[in-house]
Amino acid sequence: MHIGVVGGGQLGRMLGLAGIPLGFRFTFLDPSPEAGAGAVGELLVAGYDEEHALDQLRDECDVVTYEFENVPATSARYLTERVPVWPPPRALGVAQDRMAEKQAFESAGLTVPSYRSVDSDDDIRAAAADLGSPLVVKTRREGYDGKGQRVISSEGDIAGTCGALGAVPLIAESFVDFDRELSLIAVRSTTGEQAFYPLVENTHHEGILRTARPAPAADALQEVAEQLASSLLDALGYAGVLTIEMFEVAGELLGNEMAPRVHNSGHWTIEGSVTSQFENHLRAITGLPLGSTATTGSPFMLNLIGEIPDPEDVLGVPGAHLHLYGKSARPGRKVGHVTVCAEDDASLTRTVHALAGLPGTWQG
Amino acid sequence: MHIGVVGGGQLGRMLGLAGIPLGFRFTFLDPSPEAGAGAVGELLVAGYDEEHALDQLRDECDVVTYEFENVPATSARYLTERVPVWPPPRALGVAQDRMAEKQAFESAGLTVPSYRSVDSDDDIRAAAADLGSPLVVKTRREGYDGKGQRVISSEGDIAGTCGALGAVPLIAESFVDFDRELSLIAVRSTTGEQAFYPLVENTHHEGILRTARPAPAADALQEVAEQLASSLLDALGYAGVLTIEMFEVAGELLGNEMAPRVHNSGHWTIEGSVTSQFENHLRAITGLPLGSTATTGSPFMLNLIGEIPDPEDVLGVPGAHLHLYGKSARPGRKVGHVTVCAEDDASLTRTVHALAGLPGTWQG
Repeated sequence: MHIGVVGGGQLGRMLGLAGIPLGFRFTFLDPSPEAGAGAVGELLVAGYDEEHALDQLRDECDVVTYEFENVPATSARYLTERVPVWPPPRALGVAQDRMAEKQAFESAGLTVPSYRSVDSDDDIRAAAADLGSPLVVKTRREGYDGKGQRVISSEGDIAGTCGALGAVPLIAESFVDFDRELSLIAVRSTTGEQAFYPLVENTHHEGILRTARPAPAADALQEVAEQLASSLLDALGYAGVLTIEMFEVAGELLGNEMAPRVHNSGHWTIEGSVTSQFENHLRAITGLPLGSTATTGSPFMLNLIGEIPDPEDVLGVPGAHLHLYGKSARPGRKVGHVTVCAEDDASLTRTVHALAGLPGTWQG
Repeated sequence: MHIGVVGGGQLGRMLGLAGIPLGFRFTFLDPSPEAGAGAVGELLVAGYDEEHALDQLRDECDVVTYEFENVPATSARYLTERVPVWPPPRALGVAQDRMAEKQAFESAGLTVPSYRSVDSDDDIRAAAADLGSPLVVKTRREGYDGKGQRVISSEGDIAGTCGALGAVPLIAESFVDFDRELSLIAVRSTTGEQAFYPLVENTHHEGILRTARPAPAADALQEVAEQLASSLLDALGYAGVLTIEMFEVAGELLGNEMAPRVHNSGHWTIEGSVTSQFENHLRAITGLPLGSTATTGSPFMLNLIGEIPDPEDVLGVPGAHLHLYGKSARPGRKVGHVTVCAEDDASLTRTVHALAGLPGTWQG
């Protein structure tokens, strides 16, 4: 089975590492000749909309997937004319537009923060009057890692917001004073089979994910989250991993956004689950039986941002697993992650403490 | 760090899969353009003794290792002139000659079956008179998977044995009526740090390894085996994984042979150990701290020989992990393996039972 992947970053790289043992071959489409997934498959260096490259993918591959949600809609349509593309382009369309995303969440029964479409500073003023403040104003499209958004706390913050965000379609949402950020990694196969990982507790700093681990004390929310995700997967006719990011507020879940792909908050599943999110994504899009999502031990993931620690320092910490993405260091850039799988919570705390001081980690 | 590997089969492929997350790049030297390790690095298609290929390895790589023990001694020497080669060529020399191997075992304190060098059918007759029968006559060099050996049970079996084995230097050993076959995966770093996996219980059929798992009821032997292995590692000035194959006879260990490399009997460590043999081999030859060799759950590995089962049938068995080597099926050829990591022995038995009927598995 030959799998095409639009995008050749770390997610593609980890898909390749998970899929090669299953006998899959990979071709990655990425504009950068340095793309890290080149280590695990053929790297097709071209723009995401270049027809000759898309032709190669749809001619050579048995199935095409992607590792980020901003695949041009025209490219996705062009591919689907001749090759199965999973997750379905429809899910891409929803994930690319925060308005459509919120509507999809609501249809599935997942409550979202109050929101409305805004296109001018006056619209923001009206939204603030109506929804109350603080508000978060976000671009409807192409925001990630905290980019493309502003918090409006008072009237004085409003002037110039639309211009600063690029005079593009925006959405204003009630600011959520959440207790914690959770995500659910859900997976549905082309056969309709579904599986869910335990809810993940995430911490962010400067808009970038820093740590992730199976959420403690989330049993009551797990069932609710799985039911909502199940409805959403079915409604989208989905295949592959779907990540739903949520806020927990006073014991309730609020939908934030979704990613139609494997996700940074699920990287701990490589060592911490019987089957990783990467392997289950591949099983799902090829119609193979899904693997167990049971957790093994007490896993915890720390992102490496902007700096690459000395591997010797990471691997000297008992139980630490290093994942480098083959990227050079640059401020704010995800260059790798470290997962620890401790036997119990006490040793987990010690291990995380030993790691959370190394270059690239965040000591929150 | 750029790692050169002489050989590009499944062991190279699994080294690459383990090393890419550590940030390593790989170049594999293999005569076959189909070599499965090509999926995880550059494949240099050339003979093991072709100077231009060896030049590329020693010029481009920071360290060179190998995935089989029959690397030509001249090639190993040529490489070591300019690049570190681990495990040390001295260990290659020992592993390539059953006489040297037995002597190295004895020096380390590991008892071996009675043996002697034989070069003619008359020598075999003399050995049978002296050591008793049955005897096993083996080529001193280049035997594997049961090839290059004959069992001599009576006088009538002797005539023509030397000719049939190729008129090469031979060794005659007392036939060992063992209780079970065990192997120890030992690892020593360039820094001198050592680690040992639990003794593995192996079953063979038609001379080929079929199943492997951490040996039950081997606590008393573990300490003995580790001490012997530790002496051998130090004596050889070793770095990397060293596999020692032994027989258990009436509660004692008898040395059989060694492989200066990662080994089929350690494939279960990918899912069944905190750190796999592949990752620890790479950590060892690059001087990184060794990872924990603790076992997780109850792992069990089944080789896939000669036939490739339908991945759907394998992955439909809960807890089964599939590893295909990118090879076409051919009688007697190792084309993949399946590892199951059960929570307890009862569920392990059920799972192994479900797998041990699929094409390629051995139902012993």
